[in-house]
Amino acid sequence: MTKSYFFRCVLLLGALVSSCVFRKAASPQEQALANKVNPFIGTGGHGHTYPGAVMPFGMVQLSPDNGTQGWDWCSGYHYSDSLIAGFSHTHLSGTGIGDLCDISVMPYYAGAVEKKARQKFSHQQETATPGLYTVTLENKIKVALTATERVGFHQYTFPKDSVKAISLDLGFAINWDKPTETKITLVNDTLVTGYRKSTGWANQQWVYFAAVFSEPVQKQVLKRNGQSVAGKEVAAEKALAAFYFAPGEKPLLLKVSISSASVDGALQNLKVEIPAWDFQRVATSGKAKWEGELQKIQASFVHPAMDTVFYSALYHSFVAPSLFSDVKGQYKGHRDTVRTANFNRYTVFSLWDTFRAAHPLYTITQPNRMPDFLNSLMRSYQELGLLPVWELSGNETNTMTGYHAVPVLADALLKGYLPEKAEEMYQAMVASASQNIRGTDFYRTYGYIPADKDGFSVTKTLEYAFDDWCIAQVAKKLGKQTDYQKYRQRALSYQPLFDAKTLFMRGKNADGHWKEPFDPFYSEHGDKGTYIEGTAWQHSWFVPHDVQGLINLFGSEQRFVQHLDSTFNVTSQMTGENVSPDISGLIGQYAHGNEPSHHIAYLYNYAGQPWKTQARVRQIMDQLYRNHPDGLSGNEDCGQMSAWYVFSALGFYPVNPSDGNYVLGSPLVTQARIQVEKNKVFEISAENNSAQNIYVQQVFLDGKPLTRSYITHAELMQGGTLKFVMGPQPNKTWGTSPQAYPPSMSEKK
Amino acid sequence: MTKSYFFRCVLLLGALVSSCVFRKAASPQEQALANKVNPFIGTGGHGHTYPGAVMPFGMVQLSPDNGTQGWDWCSGYHYSDSLIAGFSHTHLSGTGIGDLCDISVMPYYAGAVEKKARQKFSHQQETATPGLYTVTLENKIKVALTATERVGFHQYTFPKDSVKAISLDLGFAINWDKPTETKITLVNDTLVTGYRKSTGWANQQWVYFAAVFSEPVQKQVLKRNGQSVAGKEVAAEKALAAFYFAPGEKPLLLKVSISSASVDGALQNLKVEIPAWDFQRVATSGKAKWEGELQKIQASFVHPAMDTVFYSALYHSFVAPSLFSDVKGQYKGHRDTVRTANFNRYTVFSLWDTFRAAHPLYTITQPNRMPDFLNSLMRSYQELGLLPVWELSGNETNTMTGYHAVPVLADALLKGYLPEKAEEMYQAMVASASQNIRGTDFYRTYGYIPADKDGFSVTKTLEYAFDDWCIAQVAKKLGKQTDYQKYRQRALSYQPLFDAKTLFMRGKNADGHWKEPFDPFYSEHGDKGTYIEGTAWQHSWFVPHDVQGLINLFGSEQRFVQHLDSTFNVTSQMTGENVSPDISGLIGQYAHGNEPSHHIAYLYNYAGQPWKTQARVRQIMDQLYRNHPDGLSGNEDCGQMSAWYVFSALGFYPVNPSDGNYVLGSPLVTQARIQVEKNKVFEISAENNSAQNIYVQQVFLDGKPLTRSYITHAELMQGGTLKFVMGPQPNKTWGTSPQAYPPSMSEKK
Repeated sequence: MTKSYFFRCVLLLGALVSSCVFRKAASPQEQALANKVNPFIGTGGHGHTYPGAVMPFGMVQLSPDNGTQGWDWCSGYHYSDSLIAGFSHTHLSGTGIGDLCDISVMPYYAGAVEKKARQKFSHQQETATPGLYTVTLENKIKVALTATERVGFHQYTFPKDSVKAISLDLGFAINWDKPTETKITLVNDTLVTGYRKSTGWANQQWVYFAAVFSEPVQKQVLKRNGQSVAGKEVAAEKALAAFYFAPGEKPLLLKVSISSASVDGALQNLKVEIPAWDFQRVATSGKAKWEGELQKIQASFVHPAMDTVFYSALYHSFVAPSLFSDVKGQYKGHRDTVRTANFNRYTVFSLWDTFRAAHPLYTITQPNRMPDFLNSLMRSYQELGLLPVWELSGNETNTMTGYHAVPVLADALLKGYLPEKAEEMYQAMVASASQNIRGTDFYRTYGYIPADKDGFSVTKTLEYAFDDWCIAQVAKKLGKQTDYQKYRQRALSYQPLFDAKTLFMRGKNADGHWKEPFDPFYSEHGDKGTYIEGTAWQHSWFVPHDVQGLINLFGSEQRFVQHLDSTFNVTSQMTGENVSPDISGLIGQYAHGNEPSHHIAYLYNYAGQPWKTQARVRQIMDQLYRNHPDGLSGNEDCGQMSAWYVFSALGFYPVNPSDGNYVLGSPLVTQARIQVEKNKVFEISAENNSAQNIYVQQVFLDGKPLTRSYITHAELMQGGTLKFVMGPQPNKTWGTSPQAYPPSMSEKK
Repeated sequence: MTKSYFFRCVLLLGALVSSCVFRKAASPQEQALANKVNPFIGTGGHGHTYPGAVMPFGMVQLSPDNGTQGWDWCSGYHYSDSLIAGFSHTHLSGTGIGDLCDISVMPYYAGAVEKKARQKFSHQQETATPGLYTVTLENKIKVALTATERVGFHQYTFPKDSVKAISLDLGFAINWDKPTETKITLVNDTLVTGYRKSTGWANQQWVYFAAVFSEPVQKQVLKRNGQSVAGKEVAAEKALAAFYFAPGEKPLLLKVSISSASVDGALQNLKVEIPAWDFQRVATSGKAKWEGELQKIQASFVHPAMDTVFYSALYHSFVAPSLFSDVKGQYKGHRDTVRTANFNRYTVFSLWDTFRAAHPLYTITQPNRMPDFLNSLMRSYQELGLLPVWELSGNETNTMTGYHAVPVLADALLKGYLPEKAEEMYQAMVASASQNIRGTDFYRTYGYIPADKDGFSVTKTLEYAFDDWCIAQVAKKLGKQTDYQKYRQRALSYQPLFDAKTLFMRGKNADGHWKEPFDPFYSEHGDKGTYIEGTAWQHSWFVPHDVQGLINLFGSEQRFVQHLDSTFNVTSQMTGENVSPDISGLIGQYAHGNEPSHHIAYLYNYAGQPWKTQARVRQIMDQLYRNHPDGLSGNEDCGQMSAWYVFSALGFYPVNPSDGNYVLGSPLVTQARIQVEKNKVFEISAENNSAQNIYVQQVFLDGKPLTRSYITHAELMQGGTLKFVMGPQPNKTWGTSPQAYPPSMSEKK
C-alpha cells in the first residue's frame, strides 16, 4: 500500500468482500476536508445543532429558524420541521435551553409581507456546508446565507417580476428568550440600524445591528408591537419592519453586522469584514477558513464513511465559544457597561460540558485562540467577581454544577499557557473555591455536601473535589505549599460519599447517615435530585483525578471492573416519575448522550484491563455517532459531544482533563496527522486496524515500544509518531501492570 | 420467597445493593395492569405513536393533534411539540406516512373562536392512561377525552364566566391527507351531523359523523373554505363550524361517533355505545376493557421498571388493526360502495410490519378477533381482487413490498383458525402469487427479480420466496401435492441472489451478473434501491423459512455465525447520499428500528450458538426499549415494534412467523402467565434470572428437560409450564446439537 492509496473498504472477518470499492484517495490539497462536513448532523434527535453559516468560533451564526417552540428547537431549527420563520444571526450549538436567535430576517414578495406567515421548505431543496447554507422556499424564493466572523451575508433570489420584500422582526423569539426593548431605524434608503435587547437564559442580552441592502428601499412598513406606525423609526418591545424593493431578477443582497456594544461597532464590523458585495467571494473565503481549521487534523479511517462523522465532529468542536467583541474590541459587559478588550473576547462557555474534552482539544488545536479563551474567562471573573459557571453573552446563567472554569484555567496553565497571568488566574480559581454560594459552604463545613442541605449533593461534591485537585496542582506549580496541601486534602472529598456496600456514590445527610431509600436506577429531573441529570450508575464514576483512590475504595480491581462491567450491562430502564430527558445514548446505564458518562469507558485502563476500554469506545463510536440528522445521541453541548469523538477516533482521551495525560483507547483512524505547531506534526498510525481488529496489540511511541496505557501532552506537542498495532483478539498482557496505568492521585493499596 | 412477595431489585454481580426496595407486590386483582401503561412511549423520537384514548383495536382514536406537518407528526402528535390544534378522532399508531386525523374538535372561549389559533400546553398538565387522555391548555380550558369502540367522548371545562365555544374543523389535515368534500349540518340545537371525505395515503376515505352536545347551541358560525355562510348547514372542501354555548361552570360534554358508511351508522353507534352522559363511567369501563386485554399476560420482571415497558408494549400491540364496521355492520368499501359484514370488519393492516410478530401474537392472545382479522383481509380480496399489501380504510395503499397477507392467513390456517374457509383463503393466497404487478412476473420468469428490471429487487425476491413457502405449507395441508411442490420450489428463490464471495444477498441483473458496484453499507431511500429501507447487511438474512438452507449457502455454520457477529459488530455508518431514515436503533448494522432486522438476533439458535441470541436479545430489550417518549428505536408500525418486545420478554420469538415454532431467547420475565384459553394457562418462569444472569442454563417444558431451542404453538396453546434456569455464563452445550435447532426447510449439508 503506497501512501497515496488507501484501502477504502472494511475487512470483514470470515467474509471476502470482493466488490467493494478501491479508490484513489486525493491528496489533502486536492480533496477539501470542508467537503466532508455535514452540518446537519445533530439537527435531528436531541443534538440541538443548527445547519447555518458560521465561521470558526464566530460571533454570527446565520441560520434558519422554524419558529417552533420546544426543547428540540433550542437551536431554532429541528430537522423534523417543515417550516421556516426566518433567518436570524445568533444561535446556540447543542444546548438544552433555548435562547438567542436575534435579528430575524425573512424574505417575502407580493402582498405577503405584513402577514408574516412561515414558509414551507423541503430538505431536498436545502444544502449546508461550512460557511454556506442554501434553501429554496416553497414560494420559490432562493436563499443563500454566508458569514464572516461578525457579519451575516444574505442573498435572496425572488421569482421574476415579484415585488421583493424583506421583513426584519425583532420580536421574533424562541423558548426562554423574550425581547424587552427593540429599535429599528431606516437611516437612508439602503442602511438600517437598531438593536434588540432581550431577557431569557441570558438575563440581559444586547444585540446592536447594522444592515445594508444592495438596492434602495422603495417603501417601508414599520410596526410597533403589531401596530403600523408612520416614519422611518420604530422603538418597541417588539419592533418589526417590512422593506419593499423594486421588482427585478437581480438577487437582493443584505449584509447584517452585529455588536453587543453599539451600532457603531456593528457599522465598523461591516466596513472591515465585508466591504464589497461579492457573495461568492465571502462564501469561498469562509470555506477556506474552515478548511484551515480542519486541516489541523488529517485523518483516514477504518471505514470511508467515518470521515464525514469525524470532520463534522471537528467542525462542531470549533463553533463555540463564540466571538463576543466587535472589531473595535468592544462588547457589552455586566451591568450595562460597554467594555473594551485588547484581545478577542469570547462568550458561550458551557463549562460543565466543555471542560471535559473540548477545552483540552483546544489546548492542542487552538494555540492562538487559547489566550483569548482564558482572558475571556478572566474578564468574567473581573466583571462578576467569580469565574463563570455557564457564561452567555456576558451573563452568568448559573446553569449546571461545579466551578469548571477552574479545570480549564488549570489545564492551560499546567500546559504552559499564559505563565505571566498564573498568579492572577490562581486567585480567581481560589475565589471559586471560597465562595459561599452553590453549596460550597456546606462542602467546606461537612467535607461533602449533605443531601438534606442542598440539591445535586453527590454531583456537586464529586465535581468540587476534582476542581479542587486542579487548584492544588496550580498551587504546587506556583510553590504555594500550604495551599497545595489544603486543596489536595479537599480533592479527597469524594471519599465520604462512597458506600462500600452498594459500591455507589450516595447522598449522605448532615448526620452522616445515607439518604434512604436508595435506588441506583432512580433519576429525578429538576433541582431536588441527588445527581444532576442522571442516576447513581452514571455519576458514581466521577473521580477523574484519583481513579486509583476510587479503586482502593472498591477494595479490589476485580470489584471495580465488575461494577464497571455492570454499568454497561444492567438494564437501561430508569425509575422515578420525572426522569431526566438528558439521559440518552444508553448502553446499560452508561449514557453517552450526557456528559457525566464521557470518561467512564476509559476507566478500565486504570485497572489493567485496557481491552475492555478498547471494545467499549469502538462500540460507542460505531453506534452512537452517525452521518445522519439523528447522528448524535444527546445534546451536542457546544462541542463536547463532538470533541469526545475527535479524541476517541484518534485513539486517546483526557480522562482527567487537567493532568496533561491522554488515556489510550482504540483508534478509529488508520492514519492521522495532527499539526501541533507550525512545523511540528504528531503522526498516528494504526496497523491492521479494521472493523474487527479493534484490540490494541502493541503501541510504539516514536518507534519505541510503549508499555504504559497513556501518553502525555508534552509528548504529543513535541511531535513524533504514535503507532498502534491492532488485532481481533485482546492482548491481555499490554497495559496490565500497575506501572502502565494512567496516573492517579492515590497510590495503589 | 412466598408467592405474594417479589424480590423487586436487581441483583448486581459483585455488588451488594443493601438499600434497594423490597416491596409487597399486590395481587393481580389489586394492582391494575392498566396503571402500568404509559401511552406516551413512542410519542417522541421516531416512534410515531399517539397518546390519546382508544379502545383495544377500536375504530375511534381520540387524540390531540399539534397541527404540525412533518414525518414525526404522522400520528398527529409529537412529544417535542408545545401546541395543540385540536382533538381528532382517527390516528395511526406508528406509521411512517401521515394520514387520518379526521373530525377535529377544539374548545375555545370569548371571541377567539373564529381565529382558530393553536393553544400552548405543557406536559406537566397532561396525562394519558388506557382510554383516558387529559390536558389543561394554557388558556385554562381543561380537556378530558375518553372513547368507546366507535364513539369519542369529550369533556371540556372552561374558565368561569367564559362563553364556551367549540370549533369543528373538517378542513384540518396533516401530511398526505387532503379533504375533498366535507359537510356540517346543525340538525337541532344539540345534534350535528356530517361527513369528511378526503384523499391522501388512503386514496379515498369517508368519515361520517354524528356529534351531540350536552347543552344547546346558542349560536353557530359556519364557514365555507374560510368564508362565513348563513344558515345551519355548510358543504365545502373545507367546512368549519363554531358553536357557542351559554356561560356556566358545568363542563361541556360532547360525544362524537363516526362511521365510514353513513350518518345513520354513526347515530346508531352513538345510541348503542354511549346512551348516557356519564363521562367517568365510560372512562372506567374503557379502562376495564384494557385491563381485560392486559390481564391475558401477567408477568413480573428482572427489574421492576420493566413492567411499564412491557405493558405499554402489550397496549401498543393491541391498538391496530382498527375496527372499521359500524354497529350496523356497515363500512364504505372499495368504489364508494357501502358494504355490510356479519363480522367485525377491521382496517389498518400494516402487513409488511405486522406479519412478523404482531399477527402471531394475536394467534395466541386474540382468539376471538382472529376470525374477524382474517375475514377482513378476505373482504379486501373480494373487493379489490387481491389480498391487501397495506390496507387503509378500505384502500390498497401499495406501500412496502411482499404479499404478506399470505403468511398471516397461512399461519392462522396452520394453527387451526377458520378451517371451513381454508380453500377460499388458499385461492386468495395463490392469486397474490399469480399477479402480474409488483415485479412478480419477473420473479416467475427469472426465478428472482432482476435488479435492472425492478426496484427493491433483493427485498422483493426474498420476501416472495418466504410468502411462497407459506403457500406451499397450506397446499400441503389441503392435499394439493402439485401446488406444494411448485411453491416449495419457488420458496428456494432466495438462493440465486446469494453471493458466496461477499456472503450477502445481492442485486442480480437479468443477464445473471451481479449489479455493480456493491457496497453492503449503501442505502438508497425511494423506489430505486435494491433493498427497501435498508442495507445489504440488514436484508441478507431474510430467509426465515430456510435458515439451514442459508447456512448451507454460507458453507459452514462457522462462516454463518461470523457474518452474523459482523452484522452486530461492524460500523453503523451507512454510505449513500439518500440513506433511508428508517434505518435506526443500530447495533452495528443491525437496525432494530426497522422490521427487516427483527428476526436476526434469533438466528444463532439455527447454528448451535443460542447463547449469542440470548446476549443480543437482552441487549436489544435493555437498550432499545425504554419508559420514555423516545423509548422506541423506530416507528412503532401498528404494533410490530411492541410485539417484538412482548415475545422477546417472554423468552421466545416467531422467527418464521408461519411455521408455528417459537425460537427461544432470553426471557426478561421472572414469571409470566399467558392465558391461552379460558381455563388454560401457559406459565413461564425464569429461575435465577437477573441483569447479569442472562444466559439460559437449562429449560424445562412441563417439568421435563427441553433440549431443543424452540417450542411449538401447540405446546403453548395446550397450557403447561416453561421453566428457564438462568446463569451468568453461557451454557455452551445446551441447544448445540443439530437435533436441537429450530426447523428449516432444507436439511443440514
